Amino acid sequence: MNVTATEIYRSIEMIRRQAPVVHNITNYVVMNSTANALLAIGASPVMAHAKEEVEEMVNISSALVINIGTLSEYWIYSMFKAVSQARKKGIPVILDPVGAGATTYRTKTARELINRESPTIIRGNASEIVALYDDKSKTRGVDSVSSSDAAVEIAQKLSEIHKCVICVSGATDYIVSKEKIIKIKNGHPLMTKVTGLGCTASALCGAFAAVERKPFAATVKAMAVMGIAGEMAAAAAKGPGSLQTRFLDYLYCLSENDISQHLKIED
Amino acid sequence: MNVTATEIYRSIEMIRRQAPVVHNITNYVVMNSTANALLAIGASPVMAHAKEEVEEMVNISSALVINIGTLSEYWIYSMFKAVSQARKKGIPVILDPVGAGATTYRTKTARELINRESPTIIRGNASEIVALYDDKSKTRGVDSVSSSDAAVEIAQKLSEIHKCVICVSGATDYIVSKEKIIKIKNGHPLMTKVTGLGCTASALCGAFAAVERKPFAATVKAMAVMGIAGEMAAAAAKGPGSLQTRFLDYLYCLSENDISQHLKIED
Amino acid sequence: MNVTATEIYRSIEMIRRQAPVVHNITNYVVMNSTANALLAIGASPVMAHAKEEVEEMVNISSALVINIGTLSEYWIYSMFKAVSQARKKGIPVILDPVGAGATTYRTKTARELINRESPTIIRGNASEIVALYDDKSKTRGVDSVSSSDAAVEIAQKLSEIHKCVICVSGATDYIVSKEKIIKIKNGHPLMTKVTGLGCTASALCGAFAAVERKPFAATVKAMAVMGIAGEMAAAAAKGPGSLQTRFLDYLYCLSENDISQHLKIED
Repeated sequence: MNVTATEIYRSIEMIRRQAPVVHNITNYVVMNSTANALLAIGASPVMAHAKEEVEEMVNISSALVINIGTLSEYWIYSMFKAVSQARKKGIPVILDPVGAGATTYRTKTARELINRESPTIIRGNASEIVALYDDKSKTRGVDSVSSSDAAVEIAQKLSEIHKCVICVSGATDYIVSKEKIIKIKNGHPLMTKVTGLGCTASALCGAFAAVERKPFAATVKAMAVMGIAGEMAAAAAKGPGSLQTRFLDYLYCLSENDISQHLKIED
Repeated sequence: MNVTATEIYRSIEMIRRQAPVVHNITNYVVMNSTANALLAIGASPVMAHAKEEVEEMVNISSALVINIGTLSEYWIYSMFKAVSQARKKGIPVILDPVGAGATTYRTKTARELINRESPTIIRGNASEIVALYDDKSKTRGVDSVSSSDAAVEIAQKLSEIHKCVICVSGATDYIVSKEKIIKIKNGHPLMTKVTGLGCTASALCGAFAAVERKPFAATVKAMAVMGIAGEMAAAAAKGPGSLQTRFLDYLYCLSENDISQHLKIED
Repeated sequence: MNVTATEIYRSIEMIRRQAPVVHNITNYVVMNSTANALLAIGASPVMAHAKEEVEEMVNISSALVINIGTLSEYWIYSMFKAVSQARKKGIPVILDPVGAGATTYRTKTARELINRESPTIIRGNASEIVALYDDKSKTRGVDSVSSSDAAVEIAQKLSEIHKCVICVSGATDYIVSKEKIIKIKNGHPLMTKVTGLGCTASALCGAFAAVERKPFAATVKAMAVMGIAGEMAAAAAKGPGSLQTRFLDYLYCLSENDISQHLKIED
């Protein structure tokens, strides 16, 4: 499998043209930046968590993104309800297990979300992915401490068991399925100093999965776009404040040429 | 009726001088950007939703802004409580029916908010305004699909029934009362790529209504300022990220000259 | 006591090296900007409020920041639980009594938080600090109306009773303990036009207290860094939008030289 700049750009054009509705049940910290990133890439974000409306909102959406960053009981209930409806309707479900491994509550919730009905795509840092499988790992706050190698191995197992695509993100992003692994080496260290860019990556997976039938290719494309826009923003930024601003600008303006010039992808 | 640049600027000066407290019960996505916009124009934003304190908060406020963007039961209860107190106290109530028409829950809540005690001003996109009157319309996510013409007609009916001012916002903003319609043609398409600028417009209606006795004029002024600051920000921006930043800068700096140079208003 | 630029910078270096986990139970409005400020200074922010996980989250944290800006019953319960665990574990607790004095609910909650288990540091504006002691004062919305002199006097009493450090922030920041008062005259009026910079200051107190054993020195350092980064950002800004962006950039880049050139501290 080889994802080219042209193919990535074609998906961006489809997002811009179709403006797919992406339904997010996400954490309080990143709601604003997630909505802005989805708008910038051309999608139509919706945030709704009330048990009275999540199913109807899923029904008008083309992807569902579940993010457990600021959990509580009520929200978990709605997440399950929305996932179940998304599965019934057949739209892709993206899970971001923020902070899995940091507390029992998060690890347990993330595992239940995976076990009850497999998501289409799971994106997390190494610690979070490891925590989905094995609680002997340690997450330090919501940042990653596990090695990528260990996480990729676990991602392969999870991918096989749950028949889903898993992205282990970090300096190198690993997109993992049962049969294959692709590495993306885009991005910039300054991106780790902006809150919620991981959550943004998961939301972009939702936007790409909404227009691209193959979840593996959608994940590769989303992570490449994420890294490239981040890299270009970092080059233009004076720190994490301006990176955040410029990141949205680049997501919005990204051209095929930008992608082909920056794309660092490896089988 | 003719609202001039001088009159708009005079209201801005009043806001800057009085710093009216604007109480917002709004959605999680836009709380930060709403508070920043209110501060930039010179108002004093307060966000409070606990049933234990909304009435007391209303009592120290000069306007109440209700936004249903991320509803749940608890919040709805507090909204009604706050609106009721605002009506008792006689301060203007602004309603932003975000996503009305998208789900039954939102449509129902928005209609109840209007029926139980009429707001002073309602601001929404065409689909949302149509949904307040007639559920045969369709909202696509939280974005608008209804035509402005249809929405303006419905806005006139709603305005007559509920004795309130209605703003149908879009490429052209229509400010509608029983007797008159004013069109504002300020703004820029890039503004639709920043989340929550509609919500910001509603909050600015609150700030202007706090210092300007006539709700119709307050709405015209708020929407003109919104569009002009957005237009100037778009001209200085490289994309939606920098638009958002510059928008707040322009709201803060707006001069009478800026307004008279950009104002596009039509009876 | 004399806090020098070198000492301040040494603490920043410690934060950057150790990346202490700072657990925030804070308000919806500022969660994003608080997390970004903590990341920019080098700390590792965590936001978690579920009663099921706050204690475990405290256990992996080096400081706990409690902010009552958008209170409700559930959150208050979790705040007490987290504070109690933080006290047991011996990590510093910072309290930001946002809007104390504005409503009975906030004043009562803030006082209970102080009375049940004294925080290590309390940071608020003059009205909020006065409200912690005496309800004859008046808060106007969440902005300050009390005089600094009155507040400093009350801060001294509170400091003695609760054996904690109190920062009365404003044009001049007063860091107050039973024995001493230090004034910091950094900062810029434009900072009051950006929402949540007070909350950011409290969060930075958490980051500094996580690496600096003496709470008084930690508070002085945090407030100095806050003011200096804000001052530099204001000089580079065109309004409150760009101030916010540049503030994060400067927090991230701050050098010992920046600090020694700008520091305005008085015994």
